[in-house]
Amino acid sequence: MRRVCAAIAAALGVVATAALPANAADLHGAVNGWRAAHEREVVDLLADLTALRSVAVDPAGLQATADRLQAELARRDFKARQLSAGPGAPPVVYAERVTPGARRTVVFYAHYDGQPVNPAQWRSDPFTPTLRAGLAPDAVVVDWRAAKPPYDPEWRLFGRAASDDKSSIVAFLAALDALKAAHRAPSVNIKVFWEGEEERNSPHLEQVLNENRALLAADLWLIGDAPLHQSRRRTLYFGARGDTDVEATVYGPARPLHSGHYGNWAPNPIAMAAQLIADLRDPQGNIRIPGFDADVRRLNDAERKAIADLPPIEDQLRRELLLARAETDEGLTASTMRPALNIDAIRAGDGGRAIPAEAVISMDFRLVPDETPERVQALFEERLRELGWTVVHADPDAATRAASPKLIKLVWGGGYPALRSDMTTPQARAVVESAQRAAGGPVALLPMMGGSVPIYLFAKVMGAPVVGLPIASHDNNQHAANENARLQNLWDGIDTYAGMIGDLRW
Amino acid sequence: MRRVCAAIAAALGVVATAALPANAADLHGAVNGWRAAHEREVVDLLADLTALRSVAVDPAGLQATADRLQAELARRDFKARQLSAGPGAPPVVYAERVTPGARRTVVFYAHYDGQPVNPAQWRSDPFTPTLRAGLAPDAVVVDWRAAKPPYDPEWRLFGRAASDDKSSIVAFLAALDALKAAHRAPSVNIKVFWEGEEERNSPHLEQVLNENRALLAADLWLIGDAPLHQSRRRTLYFGARGDTDVEATVYGPARPLHSGHYGNWAPNPIAMAAQLIADLRDPQGNIRIPGFDADVRRLNDAERKAIADLPPIEDQLRRELLLARAETDEGLTASTMRPALNIDAIRAGDGGRAIPAEAVISMDFRLVPDETPERVQALFEERLRELGWTVVHADPDAATRAASPKLIKLVWGGGYPALRSDMTTPQARAVVESAQRAAGGPVALLPMMGGSVPIYLFAKVMGAPVVGLPIASHDNNQHAANENARLQNLWDGIDTYAGMIGDLRW
Repeated sequence: MRRVCAAIAAALGVVATAALPANAADLHGAVNGWRAAHEREVVDLLADLTALRSVAVDPAGLQATADRLQAELARRDFKARQLSAGPGAPPVVYAERVTPGARRTVVFYAHYDGQPVNPAQWRSDPFTPTLRAGLAPDAVVVDWRAAKPPYDPEWRLFGRAASDDKSSIVAFLAALDALKAAHRAPSVNIKVFWEGEEERNSPHLEQVLNENRALLAADLWLIGDAPLHQSRRRTLYFGARGDTDVEATVYGPARPLHSGHYGNWAPNPIAMAAQLIADLRDPQGNIRIPGFDADVRRLNDAERKAIADLPPIEDQLRRELLLARAETDEGLTASTMRPALNIDAIRAGDGGRAIPAEAVISMDFRLVPDETPERVQALFEERLRELGWTVVHADPDAATRAASPKLIKLVWGGGYPALRSDMTTPQARAVVESAQRAAGGPVALLPMMGGSVPIYLFAKVMGAPVVGLPIASHDNNQHAANENARLQNLWDGIDTYAGMIGDLRW
Repeated sequence: MRRVCAAIAAALGVVATAALPANAADLHGAVNGWRAAHEREVVDLLADLTALRSVAVDPAGLQATADRLQAELARRDFKARQLSAGPGAPPVVYAERVTPGARRTVVFYAHYDGQPVNPAQWRSDPFTPTLRAGLAPDAVVVDWRAAKPPYDPEWRLFGRAASDDKSSIVAFLAALDALKAAHRAPSVNIKVFWEGEEERNSPHLEQVLNENRALLAADLWLIGDAPLHQSRRRTLYFGARGDTDVEATVYGPARPLHSGHYGNWAPNPIAMAAQLIADLRDPQGNIRIPGFDADVRRLNDAERKAIADLPPIEDQLRRELLLARAETDEGLTASTMRPALNIDAIRAGDGGRAIPAEAVISMDFRLVPDETPERVQALFEERLRELGWTVVHADPDAATRAASPKLIKLVWGGGYPALRSDMTTPQARAVVESAQRAAGGPVALLPMMGGSVPIYLFAKVMGAPVVGLPIASHDNNQHAANENARLQNLWDGIDTYAGMIGDLRW
């Protein structure tokens, strides 16, 4: 384990330490000891926060969550307040705590809002935190208040936002408590930035950052969001794919037509949509758009090495997902370093035997550096025109329909670029070393997450290095029904956060 | 007009008459005179029948309709009764009337059930017959009971089954009344066979025919169903395409996957379904299945001539449907003489940005002689296997999913073969001549309708010639919301039916 750790560190230009510093070992021993003695209290806090209805449809629930978080921070010696993100938008919970003698300042980012819920799809109410003995559908419900710690680390707390990101928030707060109990001072000045509309694509984030540049000045942003690598190894990430999405409507006849009386004569918009998808994307997922790769920045040596050093998880994942193959054999993480064209949904026909009037395709592009949403959108539309499509951006009128053999309406959903930040800066190296000391071994280093979070903004607006610090398990069902937080992930998260607060130095 | 008529008749081996027989002219003059004097009464009857809820979800409505029809027939000197189609199935209304001296017996077929309704999509309640001044969305409602005949023939009565087939039934009944008023005896013995589950694919029809072979013995079946040619010319058809349909489920990962974290790695079932559709069907609608055409019977001279003589309607239709092109330039009717593969619906994804777990495609094949559903199904599955698909017919287990790179579940919906009957039999020639005399000119002769009705059964079980006698306009919205019967079509229908009852001889 130590050898692997040293190899990764070498790849990143990190000088591997022959042994963990005595004070780091002490620190993590003390933190884990505190946690073992306070498991009930930690789960109670996560359950309390999960019970708060911090979803976009419930502004009062979002506000109550912000108030509770502000109070939790104030109790832990922070100067805490709420930053307005604009009229009607949930506030940002901001807090700061100066560490006497510290030279560096770190901002801990997370979001306290959760994805929308469809309670009918949940095994228990999404805002009634429910502990179960595991992930399996038949896992029994456990009353943690009646159970005697230590809890089984495979237990999971089910509830909306339990993992995404309330477990990151709880891990941060518990780490502070553990360090205080061990009389360990932080090694950095701490700022907290917890927003309440990440699951709505952070519409006010750029503005809030710009309006509070001085307040938020820092040497590093740590992003407490996203899942771990599928190997369950502790993980850091240094960027995220960007994103743009489009809803495409392909037009057939003005009204649905009996498929017997008109089949073979009236153009079928489902068949047209199918041909379009096949024209845009080959069976290996390669994007068939000329020039699409021109803007793609190549991986550097450190990034390639980090990917090569990841534990292989493809076989396990394919078993878990019942997949006989992947679209590519380059490996999951390597494949997400490339841009992707995903077909997310398609809808046409109402079940009758008819040639429908239209087919609607939902697609998303995942972007990599140095692509921009604008350039990708332009290349996509250019390709459609080459394929003979008439492209419109609003409902076409009758004359346009009657004149266009292949007509498509595109409604773009906005988007933002990717970030893949330098893994070899002093800050990045310090974060890796701290995480390795906490883990007592190697951590998974992802040059870029496959999923999209707008962390390019922190680099763009604040000009500071950004490192992602996820703690949730890859199988936590975030964004879906039955989201859950696995206790071992929470325990590891407290440990890792304690390192970032009390054992981060450069 | 007379020249065109003669040309068509010659193509069919019919000896064109130099002039309409005096008694035919008398007959149609008398019938149309009677109708002009009884428009209110005819519309009242159609409205009465349309108000009866003869849809599959309403067994009492179906029974009430059968009872009313039996009574209407009894009032017109028929021996009328109901044939059981099996427990729980709506009865067949059967009736017969012997014509002294007649040598031939004709069965008049129609169905009294209508398609299911979704009242939210209707402009007025589907069972509250509503007369409007036309088809346009802004056509005003007309109170025919207050209006003074003659009615505007462009008026339309809206309601479920108003055209499909209750207007055929009313045309038949009104024709009897008109002939009686004119003291014209029928030229044939008449049998009536009106079924109540055609819109459910006539599940008991074959059994009822078999159980009542002696009762139903006849020289000819006339099928009062389907729409006219799009030119609005009076129409006869001599067959119908057959049918088989399949719901195909294409499998992706066991659960939906975040399209960012897994896009480029996890196979996308929508992209797989799109490729499959493109593999099965080219942009001109040609079916890419080797051997698929081997069973296709070629058109004979009479059939080709009948199609060539049809009024061109493609330009008008493309304008009406806002289509810049057709899939083929051979013409609508010619294109429906070939088998078709229609993609009727596709469903995948729930709107989130995820690679869905499956995609579901609904397809139908329209068959032509001498294809069989069984052979088409076998060729289709063979083609899928050649393309690398693993084909299953029930939900696959985990092991099958994990072992199959391209997995598809097929659920076939049954099906039946096509019928294209001889247009040159004495019976067929007699029907054409009668219709021409009623129209006072040429009628559209369709060797086969594009849509499917199981009329092959009448030929197969009863061994009798079958001719289709539609009266509904092509734009009557049958099977959809806002079904309607155009008055001119009803008037023409009465006229044509009077010819079939009182002026049919061979």
